[in-house]
Amino acid sequence: MAGRNMSRRGLLAGGAAAAGGLAATGGYLTGRAASEPAEARAAEQPGTVPFHGVHQAGVATPPQTYGAFAAFDLRPGVAKESLGRLMRLLTDDARRLTEGRAGLADAQPELAGVPARLTVTFGFGPGLFTKVGLDHERPLTDLPEFKTDRLEDRWSGGDLLVQLCGEDAVTLAHALRLIVKDARDFATVRWVQRGFRRSPQAQPPGETQRNLMGQLDGTVQPADPDKAVWISGGGPAWLKGGTFMVLRRIRMDLEEWDAADEAAKEFSIGRRLADGAPLTGGRETDDPDFAAKDFAGFPVIDDNAHIRLARVDDPALRMLRRAYNYEEDVSQDGVVDSGLLFIAYQADLARQFTPVQRRLADSDLLNEWITTTGSSVFVLPPGCTPEGWIGETLLS
Amino acid sequence: MAGRNMSRRGLLAGGAAAAGGLAATGGYLTGRAASEPAEARAAEQPGTVPFHGVHQAGVATPPQTYGAFAAFDLRPGVAKESLGRLMRLLTDDARRLTEGRAGLADAQPELAGVPARLTVTFGFGPGLFTKVGLDHERPLTDLPEFKTDRLEDRWSGGDLLVQLCGEDAVTLAHALRLIVKDARDFATVRWVQRGFRRSPQAQPPGETQRNLMGQLDGTVQPADPDKAVWISGGGPAWLKGGTFMVLRRIRMDLEEWDAADEAAKEFSIGRRLADGAPLTGGRETDDPDFAAKDFAGFPVIDDNAHIRLARVDDPALRMLRRAYNYEEDVSQDGVVDSGLLFIAYQADLARQFTPVQRRLADSDLLNEWITTTGSSVFVLPPGCTPEGWIGETLLS
Ligand code: HEM
Ligand code: HEM
Repeated sequence: MAGRNMSRRGLLAGGAAAAGGLAATGGYLTGRAASEPAEARAAEQPGTVPFHGVHQAGVATPPQTYGAFAAFDLRPGVAKESLGRLMRLLTDDARRLTEGRAGLADAQPELAGVPARLTVTFGFGPGLFTKVGLDHERPLTDLPEFKTDRLEDRWSGGDLLVQLCGEDAVTLAHALRLIVKDARDFATVRWVQRGFRRSPQAQPPGETQRNLMGQLDGTVQPADPDKAVWISGGGPAWLKGGTFMVLRRIRMDLEEWDAADEAAKEFSIGRRLADGAPLTGGRETDDPDFAAKDFAGFPVIDDNAHIRLARVDDPALRMLRRAYNYEEDVSQDGVVDSGLLFIAYQADLARQFTPVQRRLADSDLLNEWITTTGSSVFVLPPGCTPEGWIGETLLS
Repeated sequence: MAGRNMSRRGLLAGGAAAAGGLAATGGYLTGRAASEPAEARAAEQPGTVPFHGVHQAGVATPPQTYGAFAAFDLRPGVAKESLGRLMRLLTDDARRLTEGRAGLADAQPELAGVPARLTVTFGFGPGLFTKVGLDHERPLTDLPEFKTDRLEDRWSGGDLLVQLCGEDAVTLAHALRLIVKDARDFATVRWVQRGFRRSPQAQPPGETQRNLMGQLDGTVQPADPDKAVWISGGGPAWLKGGTFMVLRRIRMDLEEWDAADEAAKEFSIGRRLADGAPLTGGRETDDPDFAAKDFAGFPVIDDNAHIRLARVDDPALRMLRRAYNYEEDVSQDGVVDSGLLFIAYQADLARQFTPVQRRLADSDLLNEWITTTGSSVFVLPPGCTPEGWIGETLLS
């Protein structure tokens, strides 16, 4: 990745840009030059990520340090028209907050002044369409069951998703409260999941980060989001420019992971722990050689290694992964409940997410240490103009 | 405060220093020039705060973005000698982790390389002395009950405290797991409380930050930590260079706070919401005029305003406040459980913390919106040399 060869001077410069809130890295999606026009515009206005655009922000946006994901269930009786009112309200909140302005009904305007690269992103779950009588427009169903799933209701499902990402936890807390209060008359809170990534002070933005298993996670991404992430022609017109989002809460059994030796850890993924390079050699961003055999004739990258099963040959069919770590309760015995909020965006669930997840559920070596305890899926409508609102293409 | 007049250029430069992990602000304690030699040394080694010294780090250290506080109860049978072994082990972990090196028993060395201004600080609760037969050396008791306390066991007490503060949540998660695993044979986990402050990208370090009530919180601090914070002669020799720490978990009723108007909010504190200036005028750091009356003859700063009741005239008797915000569950109705991990360090509990807390419990106007649900108190032994360990002055 670009950041890997950054000089100390480069690191400080990158940090300074991040401190001012610029998207210091353009290399997020490809490891190469920036191509996302939205991010280019963000660079003009330090500390903010533009809310308006063809697509919603918070997807192709280089991932911020904090993520908070809130799922709501519509209250009985909320119909298409009242959902439209809710989305107008929440869009207005999002527009203001991401620009560092207080919400209209903001009781704490003094907390609104620091946008800190806040993005607010909205998604609709399958149940929402049924509840507001739009089943004929419904572009998604719940995911099929996967055999390793151990799903808990309290981390699964939801009619409406609000995703908040940003570089400051106080800004996020304020935004979450405003949105939750404004949604209150229309919806109840189903769950809130919070996650974190390394901060720009700790690691230059744009470098691949380690997850709580210690692996470099996020190396292989789609080359071109226009092909892999954003919904184009073909589907319903109201969805053009949108995307599908999967959020899976995956617990890591770090106690057992600690007990495995380095070779076993690397074998399960197919990459080296130290630098993320494929077990067949080279550097992190080099292609793995899936055909290579060892001296005894066995594949160097095991048949059930995570990266072999998760591999998608056509780069246009890759999902965009944008994961957050989570860490919650600690038991009396000192076992920490932690893991990954696995989050993926793609233009087509059935062709991109589901086949990969099915292969992983069937035989991923990593399954020995991970358990999926939550699952939800949302369609993210396209972005909007300064005069518009998120969801207008479906609801107005 | 120094940061208030920072130019845009200064902000970026400060951010760059923080990105490299320097203590970008010297002004933490006084709002003026840096005077703490430990911090001056930290500036030599970007990204690290020195672990060794006369005092433990993490107290006079400018507060980092993340705080995790873990309290342990000693297992039955753990005596003075085995506690000594535990403290040698944990000191070794702390020394290595704060320098970006893996712990001796570290199963995830790849997560150890980014110290991100990590500090690890140890404290002993009153019960520890009794359990290891050192009651004759015990320098503290549990705090008295205060009439507004609504304490829950799950957030209170504890024999041994480990405080982790740093600029990166992955580094903190890794440190917490290592320490919890190494302590396992000696102690059970009583509670873990996590908190956050604004990040250096969002606000230049050294500026007073807003808490979740929206107030600028942390303006008035002791002028000289040598007088107010660190235990000097007089007490037991083993304690010289140590300090006493109070951690109070205080829930904020933000729903009711939202309903109050700005004037009522300002009246309850005695300072302006917008800029933290005293209601009697001037700027944030100007002295309040507690004698001033309004046109009707009433005191401008109410008799029960927070800053009047909390005021300590002798700057040498002020406590050092180093609070973190917390935010946890969100109810179905969208009520967020959030508040303050109020943390104060002082040389003398009975002369510094307790009288202030008693006045506040009796009549603080703020009590209408806050409830203390957890309380604990610890003595922090002095720091140690590279050959020594924390607690050696008591336990060896
Ligand atoms: C806790 C659970 C998981 C962990 C720890 C994990 C870890 C990793 C690691 C270390 C890599 C290699 C580096 C990279 O390209 O990012 C990787 C690759 C990948 N993972 Fe996962 N993963 C997890 C769950 C999942 C899930 C649930 C999916 C999708 C269903 C998934 C899809 C992928 C894909 C598509 C790749 C890229 C494969 C390639 O083309 O090389 N992962 N993962
Ligand atoms: C959620 C609970 C609390 C909130 C929201 C809060 C808020 C504030 C605010 C806004 C100020 C004025 C600015 C400043 O000097 O920092 C202040 C001052 C202060 N507070 Fe608190 N506080 C809380 C609890 C406490 C507690 C429990 C104590 C100690 C028992 C305390 C002791 C002090 C002291 C000593 C001052 C400085 C007073 C002066 O000399 O001007 N506070 N607090």
